[in-house]
Amino acid sequence: MARLVRELMQQTGAAPSDCLGVGIGCPGTIDAISGRVIYSNNLAGRVDIPLAESIASALQLPVRISNDANYAALGECVAGAARGCRSAVLLTLGTGVGGGVVWDGKVFEGGPGGMELGHTLLRTGGEPCTCGRKGCVEAYCSATALIRDAARAARSQPQSRLNQLCGSDLSRMNGKIPFDAAQAGDPAAQEVIADYLHHLGEAVTDMVNIFRPEIVLLSGGICAQGAVLTEPLNRYVQEHAFAGRWLKTPPVCIAGLGADAGLIGAACLLDG
Amino acid sequence: MARLVRELMQQTGAAPSDCLGVGIGCPGTIDAISGRVIYSNNLAGRVDIPLAESIASALQLPVRISNDANYAALGECVAGAARGCRSAVLLTLGTGVGGGVVWDGKVFEGGPGGMELGHTLLRTGGEPCTCGRKGCVEAYCSATALIRDAARAARSQPQSRLNQLCGSDLSRMNGKIPFDAAQAGDPAAQEVIADYLHHLGEAVTDMVNIFRPEIVLLSGGICAQGAVLTEPLNRYVQEHAFAGRWLKTPPVCIAGLGADAGLIGAACLLDG
Repeated sequence: MARLVRELMQQTGAAPSDCLGVGIGCPGTIDAISGRVIYSNNLAGRVDIPLAESIASALQLPVRISNDANYAALGECVAGAARGCRSAVLLTLGTGVGGGVVWDGKVFEGGPGGMELGHTLLRTGGEPCTCGRKGCVEAYCSATALIRDAARAARSQPQSRLNQLCGSDLSRMNGKIPFDAAQAGDPAAQEVIADYLHHLGEAVTDMVNIFRPEIVLLSGGICAQGAVLTEPLNRYVQEHAFAGRWLKTPPVCIAGLGADAGLIGAACLLDG
Repeated sequence: MARLVRELMQQTGAAPSDCLGVGIGCPGTIDAISGRVIYSNNLAGRVDIPLAESIASALQLPVRISNDANYAALGECVAGAARGCRSAVLLTLGTGVGGGVVWDGKVFEGGPGGMELGHTLLRTGGEPCTCGRKGCVEAYCSATALIRDAARAARSQPQSRLNQLCGSDLSRMNGKIPFDAAQAGDPAAQEVIADYLHHLGEAVTDMVNIFRPEIVLLSGGICAQGAVLTEPLNRYVQEHAFAGRWLKTPPVCIAGLGADAGLIGAACLLDG
């Protein structure tokens, strides 16, 4: 990573004195204060490495580090769909469900191991989650969960369009097929999507009841669905959030920067 | 309220110049920035009154206002069971379930209508909650919920000690009887308590996964049970929290200041 930064500096002709520092967004459990990566599935489980210190010593530049979803939320506030907002909650709907919170214009870190918004419950004793619990948001709202439920529906209803669209090979099921099949009027797919939206509505309502941010953002491949997601979600949240009758609820929107959100957020971090 | 403050100042011989100001802890949805009480069940629903401004103008003193559970959490950090902690989450287990969060030594307010930690889900579609949703923490972990479940068990198992202890008058069921009956070996009561502890364990695990505070505190009448609550809860959280295998989870303890916590917290608020 340090070598890559040096190469980039050479390519752009930037001297170390031109750089405020290096911001690192990393998946998993980060201790932002000590700059350590404590635990990350994507870096072989328990690691506990002093990543910030290592990179700082190699480059002789200040380094700050946080969870990648935190930075994506910050990037969206600086230059994306939450531009101008001082607070936002971002949920990333991918293989898992990540969460990032910006409060008062800054990343809200929580303690190390916290801000795992995808690992809060929707249904105690429900679907098994990657974290070892049962019934977490991740187990219902990730793309993985949607694919699981679509494959189940296809298996139990072989005449469904869900089967046709993956050529009767359920290993080819993806997060787009159930939306396409539902749109084409397939009842099995419509049930899968209704369930998915219900669970996502509940998850977003929880985030609203906890933080009441100015905006809630969703990112990840599923968000290509746009208003198919956000219209029912906005209705759901207004109807179900605490005191939703009296208080306007924050808008639920699709994030705007894709994979750049984390880069922009990590770069901004050296500002504050 | 202003009259009461004036009387207290007279009784103690304090001049307005001796007072830093007035801190008000109020149940319900507070906008701490504008100082308005927006919504409170205990103040006739929707109120939207500028309480801070009214009291400030009557007393000619600065006024700050927040939700009462927030102040209780702050009070516990200053002078109670969380003394010395810079972060804490407090759940109040009473008629409902309130929540307060202290972060970096200060009340973390969230936006108006937020920090409703009792109105996050444990079971989508579950028991009806006072907020209109189904399956919230409040619908399983409040004293009201425990009493409901104990009365149900007593009704379906008339030979149970639960019935004996309330003289077969279920309107006399309270939050202590199911613990007493369980301790005396009554199977129906033991099941009620096991369920209650399971749900409370799930709720606290969620708070740990979201905030990862230094400590989690419980308050309310049920907390007279002491270690009967905290021992199983601490085991549950260590076992089920995110990365609990790798990271020590925060201790779950009983709050120390009772009803004084909110008073102390509200007084401290003028400090920051």
